Amino acid sequence: MKSKKGLSMKDIAKLSGVSVATVSRVLNNNGRFSEETRKKVMEVVEKFNYQTNLVARSLRTNRSQIIGVIVPDITNEFFAAIVLAIESYCFLKGYSVFICNTNEDEEKETAYFKDLIAKGIDGLIYISGKSDKISKETLLKDIPIIFIDRRPNISSNDIVYIASDNYKGGVLATEALIKRGCRNIMILKDIRNLSTVTQRYLGYRDTLMKYNINLGEEYIVNVKKVDFEEARKAVKESIKKGLTFDSIFACTDWLALGAIAALKEEKIAIPDRVKVIGFDNISISKYSHPAISTISQNPEKLGKTAAKVLLDLIEGKTNKTTNYILPVELVLRETT
Amino acid sequence: MKSKKGLSMKDIAKLSGVSVATVSRVLNNNGRFSEETRKKVMEVVEKFNYQTNLVARSLRTNRSQIIGVIVPDITNEFFAAIVLAIESYCFLKGYSVFICNTNEDEEKETAYFKDLIAKGIDGLIYISGKSDKISKETLLKDIPIIFIDRRPNISSNDIVYIASDNYKGGVLATEALIKRGCRNIMILKDIRNLSTVTQRYLGYRDTLMKYNINLGEEYIVNVKKVDFEEARKAVKESIKKGLTFDSIFACTDWLALGAIAALKEEKIAIPDRVKVIGFDNISISKYSHPAISTISQNPEKLGKTAAKVLLDLIEGKTNKTTNYILPVELVLRETT
Repeated sequence: MKSKKGLSMKDIAKLSGVSVATVSRVLNNNGRFSEETRKKVMEVVEKFNYQTNLVARSLRTNRSQIIGVIVPDITNEFFAAIVLAIESYCFLKGYSVFICNTNEDEEKETAYFKDLIAKGIDGLIYISGKSDKISKETLLKDIPIIFIDRRPNISSNDIVYIASDNYKGGVLATEALIKRGCRNIMILKDIRNLSTVTQRYLGYRDTLMKYNINLGEEYIVNVKKVDFEEARKAVKESIKKGLTFDSIFACTDWLALGAIAALKEEKIAIPDRVKVIGFDNISISKYSHPAISTISQNPEKLGKTAAKVLLDLIEGKTNKTTNYILPVELVLRETT
Repeated sequence: MKSKKGLSMKDIAKLSGVSVATVSRVLNNNGRFSEETRKKVMEVVEKFNYQTNLVARSLRTNRSQIIGVIVPDITNEFFAAIVLAIESYCFLKGYSVFICNTNEDEEKETAYFKDLIAKGIDGLIYISGKSDKISKETLLKDIPIIFIDRRPNISSNDIVYIASDNYKGGVLATEALIKRGCRNIMILKDIRNLSTVTQRYLGYRDTLMKYNINLGEEYIVNVKKVDFEEARKAVKESIKKGLTFDSIFACTDWLALGAIAALKEEKIAIPDRVKVIGFDNISISKYSHPAISTISQNPEKLGKTAAKVLLDLIEGKTNKTTNYILPVELVLRETT
């Protein structure tokens, strides 16, 4: 164990005239030593600016009291709220949280995963942008890993997965539109095979089937990036192509916001001619004009549940690996 | 250096029949060794699930290639955008970024600071919620520290500080209101002595003086927490107290949004009877109704500048400690 200045416990022992074991006891404030001894050791320590190295300590006790969180987009309020809930819970329980933002970039995700593991975190909460590509090997680490929101393609016995009931969300959104008379419902969604999006899509598809509504492939509009601009462009293009639609189920609120911008530009009245429903209930959906109807998830509960399960696994209070699906709610505002 | 399984380099050397120095060369892929030697060592390593410990490596090379970011509120889009810019720049340059969210809690801030230092980060970007209490001792760490947005009360020669021109922002906001005929301008601000807020207030105060406008202390409305609800309550209270005001300079967009909610509830027409101007230009200011006039900061540039200066300091490309003040812009929308 060396400090950044290159001073080892052995050096400190030599300089202060006590044993290495005594130095260790003093630095860790653990075991017996006289006040005089403490002073001698600390004088040397302070003189050489020795930093008690928590890393080295964690290598001894096998616990760093730090957990990692991998998050795809910190500027997305939904993810930020999940992270905040994780952080708040863990800190109360004596754990620090290191957050890594991947910006939906697979290469970064891989790098951060390695970094966090290498830094000796006790556990990981993982919101992945490439969840369909996560291998079983990822899980063969010494630490528990909890997946939130996006589920890897691995048999359920091996993982802990926590998410909102995305399928139900898809059903609620689609039914809300159908009940308001809509029949030509566009779905606007992320092109990636993320479990969240797939579930929302399946909810939409099954609900259409239930109501005997048959729509062509052109009603499934994919965007490469989940942002305002991509959604705006995609909806404008559908309008130009002459697609007949009376409503849009946008798989996130940001996509809904972009869709609404496109409709406004084309002077299409909302909700009279086209109704729009989003997903997530981020604050912009409440304050934007018109206020957006949406499916409300509970990011606080998602984050807190993940944190609690993770700490229980770390501390051996449970060894159950199971899934948690949290309820969603329909929030009706001005776009439906 | 021990792995989580308790296997040291010495153990690996013994088991694979080579010297400790050779094990080290193989694990670090550094120096000469035969393919046969590499195989022997790696067989043992893999058998015992030895994780090349980047921490231990960083203790040797004095470089972890990881920087820390302390941020007060990850759910605030302005801070999230700064963090994203830092992360994007650093990752391109081969550095990982560990983000710690303090939720504006001083105790957490202290704890995360210690954790990051203990984990051997190469440098720190620090957005503090208690910047007036940061001592010179904080800066006596081995690593460079860059402050963004909120400036500690330490003489400027000792620190690198990067922020928007908050004073100018206060001037621009106040002048915009005065030019539209306002004379009774309320300022709505965080009660803490954060440098950002103080600068915005001074810009407001000096501009009032310049235009010979004298206002009582009651026009300075402080909130304990920078959020929607606190602002809404504070403005409602001022209305109930019978304060005469024709405009509000809210020191953040979230405060502006809360103020607007209070005005709407009291049926006070915006901007006809009361004009409102915010600060930050977060997306909600653009999409809310009415769209909020505000002062635009450039979080991307703040983050990128901080990251660049930090990496230059880490890599010894500069040793200059200086301040960077970035320009702000007035953005006029529907509330003025």
